[in-house]
Amino acid sequence: METMDGRVDSPELEQLYADFEANSTAPLWTQRDDLMPMTPAPAAVPHVWRWSNLYDIAKRSGDLVPVGRGGERRAIGLRNPGLPGTAYATPTLWCAIQYLGGHETAPEHRHSQNAFRFVVEGEGVWTVVNGDPVRMSRGDLLLTPGWNFHGHHNDTAEPMAWIDGLDIPLSNYTDVGFFEFGSDRVTDEASPDVSRAERLWAHPGLRPLSGMEQRVSSPLSAYRWEHTDAALAEQLALEDEGYPATVEQGHAAIRFSNPTTGGDVMPTIRCEFHRLREGAVTPARHEVGSSVWQVFEGRGEVVLGDETHRVEKGDLFVVPSWVPWSLRAETGFDLFRFSDAPVIERLGFARTYVPERDGVR
Amino acid sequence: METMDGRVDSPELEQLYADFEANSTAPLWTQRDDLMPMTPAPAAVPHVWRWSNLYDIAKRSGDLVPVGRGGERRAIGLRNPGLPGTAYATPTLWCAIQYLGGHETAPEHRHSQNAFRFVVEGEGVWTVVNGDPVRMSRGDLLLTPGWNFHGHHNDTAEPMAWIDGLDIPLSNYTDVGFFEFGSDRVTDEASPDVSRAERLWAHPGLRPLSGMEQRVSSPLSAYRWEHTDAALAEQLALEDEGYPATVEQGHAAIRFSNPTTGGDVMPTIRCEFHRLREGAVTPARHEVGSSVWQVFEGRGEVVLGDETHRVEKGDLFVVPSWVPWSLRAETGFDLFRFSDAPVIERLGFARTYVPERDGVR
Amino acid sequence: METMDGRVDSPELEQLYADFEANSTAPLWTQRDDLMPMTPAPAAVPHVWRWSNLYDIAKRSGDLVPVGRGGERRAIGLRNPGLPGTAYATPTLWCAIQYLGGHETAPEHRHSQNAFRFVVEGEGVWTVVNGDPVRMSRGDLLLTPGWNFHGHHNDTAEPMAWIDGLDIPLSNYTDVGFFEFGSDRVTDEASPDVSRAERLWAHPGLRPLSGMEQRVSSPLSAYRWEHTDAALAEQLALEDEGYPATVEQGHAAIRFSNPTTGGDVMPTIRCEFHRLREGAVTPARHEVGSSVWQVFEGRGEVVLGDETHRVEKGDLFVVPSWVPWSLRAETGFDLFRFSDAPVIERLGFARTYVPERDGVR
Amino acid sequence: METMDGRVDSPELEQLYADFEANSTAPLWTQRDDLMPMTPAPAAVPHVWRWSNLYDIAKRSGDLVPVGRGGERRAIGLRNPGLPGTAYATPTLWCAIQYLGGHETAPEHRHSQNAFRFVVEGEGVWTVVNGDPVRMSRGDLLLTPGWNFHGHHNDTAEPMAWIDGLDIPLSNYTDVGFFEFGSDRVTDEASPDVSRAERLWAHPGLRPLSGMEQRVSSPLSAYRWEHTDAALAEQLALEDEGYPATVEQGHAAIRFSNPTTGGDVMPTIRCEFHRLREGAVTPARHEVGSSVWQVFEGRGEVVLGDETHRVEKGDLFVVPSWVPWSLRAETGFDLFRFSDAPVIERLGFARTYVPERDGVR
Repeated sequence: METMDGRVDSPELEQLYADFEANSTAPLWTQRDDLMPMTPAPAAVPHVWRWSNLYDIAKRSGDLVPVGRGGERRAIGLRNPGLPGTAYATPTLWCAIQYLGGHETAPEHRHSQNAFRFVVEGEGVWTVVNGDPVRMSRGDLLLTPGWNFHGHHNDTAEPMAWIDGLDIPLSNYTDVGFFEFGSDRVTDEASPDVSRAERLWAHPGLRPLSGMEQRVSSPLSAYRWEHTDAALAEQLALEDEGYPATVEQGHAAIRFSNPTTGGDVMPTIRCEFHRLREGAVTPARHEVGSSVWQVFEGRGEVVLGDETHRVEKGDLFVVPSWVPWSLRAETGFDLFRFSDAPVIERLGFARTYVPERDGVR
Repeated sequence: METMDGRVDSPELEQLYADFEANSTAPLWTQRDDLMPMTPAPAAVPHVWRWSNLYDIAKRSGDLVPVGRGGERRAIGLRNPGLPGTAYATPTLWCAIQYLGGHETAPEHRHSQNAFRFVVEGEGVWTVVNGDPVRMSRGDLLLTPGWNFHGHHNDTAEPMAWIDGLDIPLSNYTDVGFFEFGSDRVTDEASPDVSRAERLWAHPGLRPLSGMEQRVSSPLSAYRWEHTDAALAEQLALEDEGYPATVEQGHAAIRFSNPTTGGDVMPTIRCEFHRLREGAVTPARHEVGSSVWQVFEGRGEVVLGDETHRVEKGDLFVVPSWVPWSLRAETGFDLFRFSDAPVIERLGFARTYVPERDGVR
Repeated sequence: METMDGRVDSPELEQLYADFEANSTAPLWTQRDDLMPMTPAPAAVPHVWRWSNLYDIAKRSGDLVPVGRGGERRAIGLRNPGLPGTAYATPTLWCAIQYLGGHETAPEHRHSQNAFRFVVEGEGVWTVVNGDPVRMSRGDLLLTPGWNFHGHHNDTAEPMAWIDGLDIPLSNYTDVGFFEFGSDRVTDEASPDVSRAERLWAHPGLRPLSGMEQRVSSPLSAYRWEHTDAALAEQLALEDEGYPATVEQGHAAIRFSNPTTGGDVMPTIRCEFHRLREGAVTPARHEVGSSVWQVFEGRGEVVLGDETHRVEKGDLFVVPSWVPWSLRAETGFDLFRFSDAPVIERLGFARTYVPERDGVR
Repeated sequence: METMDGRVDSPELEQLYADFEANSTAPLWTQRDDLMPMTPAPAAVPHVWRWSNLYDIAKRSGDLVPVGRGGERRAIGLRNPGLPGTAYATPTLWCAIQYLGGHETAPEHRHSQNAFRFVVEGEGVWTVVNGDPVRMSRGDLLLTPGWNFHGHHNDTAEPMAWIDGLDIPLSNYTDVGFFEFGSDRVTDEASPDVSRAERLWAHPGLRPLSGMEQRVSSPLSAYRWEHTDAALAEQLALEDEGYPATVEQGHAAIRFSNPTTGGDVMPTIRCEFHRLREGAVTPARHEVGSSVWQVFEGRGEVVLGDETHRVEKGDLFVVPSWVPWSLRAETGFDLFRFSDAPVIERLGFARTYVPERDGVR
């Protein structure tokens, strides 16, 4: 054991270090560099999961593991290889593939954790949020913010799989979670095309006068693909016509927002959708905070730190804090992203660095 | 002249009152009750303007008065009978009918005053906001927030009329206005169905990543009738199905909002749309602040203080501060409303009193 | 009568203008320039009131006019010469000298209007705010935000005068005011040095845990001269030591703030205190919105538009919107200021122009 | 290994679980209860550290371990017994005793992590924040918000110890931290009684006009004991006089606040001071989020879950999330507290439960 400046230990010093331990204390000077690195040094690592593998595992789970009360969901979490012993995609974000066989039901419950579903393929399941059945179809983002009862039921004979995103790791780490069981069946088994939440809220720039209070999470429980697709297509068309609309050349993007505030859909999770033209390349970006991406359509490369991965429809990858990422589109390239950016921003820790734009420091 | 408690004036007192005047001062005690009434005592009065009269006057103006630089707009303001010598609908709000003949142009300018147009009938004019042509059609709300260049041009051979709403009285009273002339012709004479602002912003709950800053006014320059109509229809349908959605039984309403904040479309003007079922009646409401209503469709009665008026499509009426108002729908009854509520709320003066709900005080 | 472009009137046109009038309407084009000037064109004019005159008039009022229920206050308002028929200092601000003879009481009442007192000389009166007696002494700023009961009583045999500032003109214009009579005597005739509000709130950066909600107005009803004086003295001392602290060279200033938000003390009125070193000169400033100043100590010149006035202790002057103002200190020069800046800022109309800094446009 | 409903594993199921592992995934159903407990189930445990022990260890460290560049600080962190392998007081909060010998210097650096010092005894050290020397004396709270350079130097021949509070655990967990070395000596070795930050900002309700922007952290780097003590004394005196002022009978408390917002002093750490009268008892409180307390003066008991501890001057204890705590004062009892409440509130996870007040659920 060494002192702060590397002297060899004396018996007194050995005793001191033993007393640190015995008194439930620990010196800063032996671990300062680990605790307070010069730049973020995440344990989480960049990683890619293949949709084909995930779907195969999920399907086999569907055959072998019944869904029901207790386990609650047939959800298989992405475990970051840098975070052994957990099922965390990043320190703050959980991401799982959830699978529901024909006519199966995942029972209702509610929890403090904020959750969403994103559908890369398939249809036939309704998620019921506080008694309001919400259709799940390809390209849709479905919200179940904290403490809303929700269950899922498959109205068809065909299985369906999608991804779940939650703030479980952060909630678990900070010890903030409550959980409550609800109905074993979903409380409304109807299968309407449009949920009541959408009927009230999915009108651009219009708010019901009966719901004028600010809400911490979006009251709009479904963001439909047709709108997302149109918004992205318009950005690229405007770019073609010479007007500013995209994030950068060939790169359209939207953020899903809470219509009562204009802010993020939930206090802990940001959701975005990105579309790159064929051939587009984004400059490398370092960002504080972590994110998970899923390819929705098309094919391209993602550079994560030093490694380049070829990814296609359904593939998922994580970007830990401050690991530079960039995208290259081989075809038109559509990607869904979620991140802990609202946490980082609300706590005052946000930083971004784009060497190509900001210069080398 | 009397003292505070009614004594007859002495010569000393007369001299004192003369000296008040000579020294550019005035005593509070002789006018306290006027300046600080027990409840709001507006000089403005409730009033109804008939669309047929307004349209006739506007049309004759179109024949007789050219539109052009200097006068700027062929707009005829509603003058509240309680506010002689002005052209104010209320102390804070300007409302005018504007008329543009076939192929005419109202030149571009910009001003601090916030403005909108609402179209009760007709089509064929494009308002060009900062170079972005915005189609004007029945039922649409079109914004030109403060300091945005804007002009109007009629792309057809037919005349068109609509209403303008501005905060001219408030701006004028508080001496906050700047004005700047722009192009004599509109800077883009195209006549697209959809403006660029809508292409970027009119997607429910979706924000372009290139426009994530908060804005004091809405970037969405057109709120289309199809969305307004659908939102109101859904509220009544949900009510029919037994779910909470309306303001009160048979009374649906939406507020037009700024998607970057969830707040009002402009800092000084609130815009809403109300729909009553046939037979619906709203309880009398006293509200601090003033508003202007226009019947969009249907027929009914409005009670303003002690007077009842029968109103139909296109008719306009004003509700001064604290004057109780209620509506009775003879048919399905659609009304557009704008008010100074954001001013009242931001300055901390908001109060509402509904005797039927709150009890008599 | 002429048309928009100066043609001579035809009979049809004369009829049209008559019909405008008959139909409670008015054309924009004949008055556009008045209603929407190129830059703010206030009717209010710069003006200076001499404290010696005001005090003399107030004292004579004290001899001749009893204070009591109905008139409520022996307050003599500054009437802007540009706003005849009113008692308004500016379109938004009321400013009066209030005078209370030995052992007199001004009865309790409350109103929507926000009010403060500022004491340029004297002592002996307590203002009682919601039952909390607040000592009034030279240099103190005392708040009575909207809808708080308040009365004043003179605990001594000597008269006392001070200035009142209120948002009466704005409140009256926008029809937002309510008024309620309270106790004829003040509800607590004690004369403590320190109010309960100060005991709870006048600790720098500390908030009582029992009062953690945000409040629209400051809960701190007294801002004492000893703190204001110290804050200003420190700014100049820091400037002497080479550190940034002042607004500009030789010009220290503080804003009175609401400790629950950091914002203005009341939603409609901003209060500040300025101190110039002997010889200091401020550059001419154009600001949207109006303000009233009172010299607290020292002597100097104020330039208001084209006119220069020599002012000294107690003198008051008004600065209408966009009229450039600057100060020149002949001695150390202390000035209290209040303005409608929170109104202007909350409504999105704020602009400042300092030619010396921003260049000529 | 069992399935969701307890069936014995088949070979297919064993293969499935192996494939979960091989594919960097993990099923939710085997760990749902751990990840999403019914109520917060913190790994951290309640614990008490004795000041006499801490001081002894710190003093011996002072004799044996030099302070200097690299280790940076002679700080000994409280290690929660439930969080082995760390030096974390709670999952979000770091708390350490820091010790500086006579005339020693802890070199300057800056980091994203927010930090404060609180002084339970002693004097003689100045902490230099961005070049501004801030005296440290008993009862003072001194802030060094994220990314401000700071160092400490002992201006006397006597050693001094105090506690440091930081958000290191949260910052480390979420990978948000940057770190930069500064000067080896403090950049200003002066030892003024009052810092420049206090001279600008420590005036109740007054803000320098040169610093009107909102800041994420408080610009006031020192909260002095004389103010804290006076604020608490006044609350108890007001209670004695029959006015509402305390949190509950016999329990005065203040929150340290950011004068530019009225909010917490730093985005991740809340600081409060509590004073109980002799004999006062607080009802048990469950709160989401964790906190660390230090007894400043007096003697009493703290009940943490099922255990009661007698504590006195300097003793520290932690309250993990949702563990009920209450205090009993044997003498007048003064305690400093810091917590992660701003994190919990900003992320929308706050809940409090006081069985005595809210009833048993």
